[in-house]
Amino acid sequence: MEKILIKQYKKPKLNKTVLIGGLPGIGNVGKIAADYLIEKLKMQKLAEVFSQYLPPQVFISEEGVTYLVRNSVYYKKFQGRPDLLILVGDFQGTTQEGQYEMSYSLLEMLREFDLARVYTLGGYSTGRMVETPRVLGAVTDPGMIDDLRGSGVVFPKGEPGGGIVGSAGILLGLAKELFDIDGACLMGETSGYFADPRGAMEVLKVIISILGFKVDLRDIEERSKQMEQLTGKVQEDIQNKAQKKEDLGYFG
Amino acid sequence: MEKILIKQYKKPKLNKTVLIGGLPGIGNVGKIAADYLIEKLKMQKLAEVFSQYLPPQVFISEEGVTYLVRNSVYYKKFQGRPDLLILVGDFQGTTQEGQYEMSYSLLEMLREFDLARVYTLGGYSTGRMVETPRVLGAVTDPGMIDDLRGSGVVFPKGEPGGGIVGSAGILLGLAKELFDIDGACLMGETSGYFADPRGAMEVLKVIISILGFKVDLRDIEERSKQMEQLTGKVQEDIQNKAQKKEDLGYFG
Amino acid sequence: MEKILIKQYKKPKLNKTVLIGGLPGIGNVGKIAADYLIEKLKMQKLAEVFSQYLPPQVFISEEGVTYLVRNSVYYKKFQGRPDLLILVGDFQGTTQEGQYEMSYSLLEMLREFDLARVYTLGGYSTGRMVETPRVLGAVTDPGMIDDLRGSGVVFPKGEPGGGIVGSAGILLGLAKELFDIDGACLMGETSGYFADPRGAMEVLKVIISILGFKVDLRDIEERSKQMEQLTGKVQEDIQNKAQKKEDLGYFG
Amino acid sequence: MEKILIKQYKKPKLNKTVLIGGLPGIGNVGKIAADYLIEKLKMQKLAEVFSQYLPPQVFISEEGVTYLVRNSVYYKKFQGRPDLLILVGDFQGTTQEGQYEMSYSLLEMLREFDLARVYTLGGYSTGRMVETPRVLGAVTDPGMIDDLRGSGVVFPKGEPGGGIVGSAGILLGLAKELFDIDGACLMGETSGYFADPRGAMEVLKVIISILGFKVDLRDIEERSKQMEQLTGKVQEDIQNKAQKKEDLGYFG
Repeated sequence: MEKILIKQYKKPKLNKTVLIGGLPGIGNVGKIAADYLIEKLKMQKLAEVFSQYLPPQVFISEEGVTYLVRNSVYYKKFQGRPDLLILVGDFQGTTQEGQYEMSYSLLEMLREFDLARVYTLGGYSTGRMVETPRVLGAVTDPGMIDDLRGSGVVFPKGEPGGGIVGSAGILLGLAKELFDIDGACLMGETSGYFADPRGAMEVLKVIISILGFKVDLRDIEERSKQMEQLTGKVQEDIQNKAQKKEDLGYFG
Repeated sequence: MEKILIKQYKKPKLNKTVLIGGLPGIGNVGKIAADYLIEKLKMQKLAEVFSQYLPPQVFISEEGVTYLVRNSVYYKKFQGRPDLLILVGDFQGTTQEGQYEMSYSLLEMLREFDLARVYTLGGYSTGRMVETPRVLGAVTDPGMIDDLRGSGVVFPKGEPGGGIVGSAGILLGLAKELFDIDGACLMGETSGYFADPRGAMEVLKVIISILGFKVDLRDIEERSKQMEQLTGKVQEDIQNKAQKKEDLGYFG
Repeated sequence: MEKILIKQYKKPKLNKTVLIGGLPGIGNVGKIAADYLIEKLKMQKLAEVFSQYLPPQVFISEEGVTYLVRNSVYYKKFQGRPDLLILVGDFQGTTQEGQYEMSYSLLEMLREFDLARVYTLGGYSTGRMVETPRVLGAVTDPGMIDDLRGSGVVFPKGEPGGGIVGSAGILLGLAKELFDIDGACLMGETSGYFADPRGAMEVLKVIISILGFKVDLRDIEERSKQMEQLTGKVQEDIQNKAQKKEDLGYFG
Repeated sequence: MEKILIKQYKKPKLNKTVLIGGLPGIGNVGKIAADYLIEKLKMQKLAEVFSQYLPPQVFISEEGVTYLVRNSVYYKKFQGRPDLLILVGDFQGTTQEGQYEMSYSLLEMLREFDLARVYTLGGYSTGRMVETPRVLGAVTDPGMIDDLRGSGVVFPKGEPGGGIVGSAGILLGLAKELFDIDGACLMGETSGYFADPRGAMEVLKVIISILGFKVDLRDIEERSKQMEQLTGKVQEDIQNKAQKKEDLGYFG
């Protein structure tokens, strides 16, 4: 068996293509944002990737139907604007070798679609609740920084300290070094404790601004609000309990 | 050395063949059921699979004779009914790569035997003793659900939650996606704490009903009863001790 | 780099050759016995094996000279008796794949030397000090049992329970299944807590009896005695301390 | 994707070339020394090595620019003296296979530059602060010992006990066994608790003496002093606290 098996369904003619990478990761920020774009832009499936770098696992739908875990690439052609490819999936490659091989073979496959730029979407873990998540950036070419700043991306010195590990980093690194394609990573702040639509929404705003699409954000705004109510309530409960304890302690 | 080494002993002409996968797993339910079928149907050995994806280990018989760990495939031809292949073995592939490679090369080898359907047998861990184990199902094709329901399989929503990991899942997934062969996983409920003939018996009833074989179940029924007496006694002991403690506590 | 790199130094013409495998393992019993044979029989180096399945490590001699870790094969021709090959080394292959590949490529290389039989030497861990270590056996061919019994090997039912894991097992298993060469594993009882010349000496007595060599065992007997005095003293100390504690406790 | 991908930028004609290996390791002694040489000798980049044996990671500069992790080789031609190659990098290969493959493919690439000798630089962990770090040596050829002693290297018996694990060891071992190139490992003593310029400076003195370069050591001397003041202060604090506790205990 080939280590990576690509089933390609379409052969569209794309131009100046932008690839967006949104695999699962911190707070699932990148995945939520990418899945949302695919749905709202009504994108079409270009290819599916099966691989022994993914867990040997099938998911089961509500109806009881199995689904072999995979990565998928969707595409959409635009008029007078770069065409779009989006990478989503159930898992990142689970080993170091898998991370390199899956990103490399994806770029290798997509290069024929006039791939011109790569944006990877991810989360930046703050370890605490964030009122207004920032979107941090990292670029392969310093010349991109000003444009991204104009779209609301921040570049704080020394953040993220450890660099970017995993698909969001290696996809950029390989695109730059081995395919001579520039790109950026956009990281939405998130507590990192749960799948976070709020961080994903901020990343969506940025990528929409960069690429100039029109995407209806009302649904993810709604999901963010529900999530915030939920987590807000949990926080309140925790604070109430802490307060109570303190009160009791005061009299104890 | 090839990573997977198949010694094929026979070249039977099989038709509309059904493959049953029963490698070791949760409660060894699938393995017990598959071994039982091979014995009762007096099946013949088709091939043996040695591989570096299995532990570097020999077992030793009571007499002191070594046995290199392996997977084996047995077959039986039927009149007026699909022919049968059964996969059994000492271990599943021990790595993610091994899981994919061993399932893939098996399907690759068996495709020439007119492989038409795959059933994988497994256990579904409940974490507690089960009076009457259900058999849960998952299918690659929604069209199979009604038939399986007719044979006693249940499809409860959201179970199993994490999907199916390992041979029972990946064999189905690869058969569907890469060989275009449909199939189902049949999971007998089991506590998961020991090798469980009771869960295996329920799975056997279902697969016999689906395939229309005649198989004498008295031996496995006997083993199930012995096991239940044993575990029942253990449970009783535990409850007695708990009761005693409580009694003492009451007076303490 | 090839995963296994063999430097072959000699091309002797050997007949009905017996291979003895003595890589490091439980109590280093096999390694001590094999190294002893090579020294006392004044065997010659046939080949060295370097491999990425061994640790990326050099040892350093007392004089400060590095030594890349390896496996080595020694040989000796005999008159009117099978010729001899012995495998020794610094490590076993450190991964499952490495275990299979290193044993396989060794057999592949040695098959041209008219390889006819394989004996692997190892330790059988008892978890406690043993006055008179037995030598347990396991064979690939039941027909070998009687002969080995005649040389002092025992075949107790159900021992070793978990089979044989590692080089001593896989070498036999692959020789049997893939090269059609029979063999046996000889396991000297050992506490398993330290490198054990006593268990190795018992294994030596057996293999000498099987193969009919003359080997002077006085040196290893001496080392065994020294070891026994040392461990005997340690045990005595422990018992004395335990006794003291008891005594004190008695008056405390 | 090839497992190791070398981008070679220059094709200089080098003679009797000496390779210095300084990848990250204990106290980063080797890396600090090697980076220092490259800077002070104004060496030029020969090649960069990307590999799936390195973490799937990009670093991010202060400005927000990504940098795919790599190993790099620098070179410099000299008059009337052996030419020089230095290996530096962000990580060593992260697996056993990676250690062998990366060292092997480096030697394979560099052999065409008339590679004649290899020195690997590393740290030797003492587990405590060292006033005057020694530089321990290990050689592939006993004939090198006297010369190295003359440059201040010591060869204490039985040190380092466990041999040399990782790049500093395997590079020497493979150079010797597979490329017939001799070399030595130079290990600067270091506590092992932090990146240690002091140990690196001692290694630099030795390698400068061996190779006869002129290198200005004032910068690393300055860094060493700063580090010593810092760690000295930390030690003082610890001792003061310990003293206080003792004093208190005295009155307690």
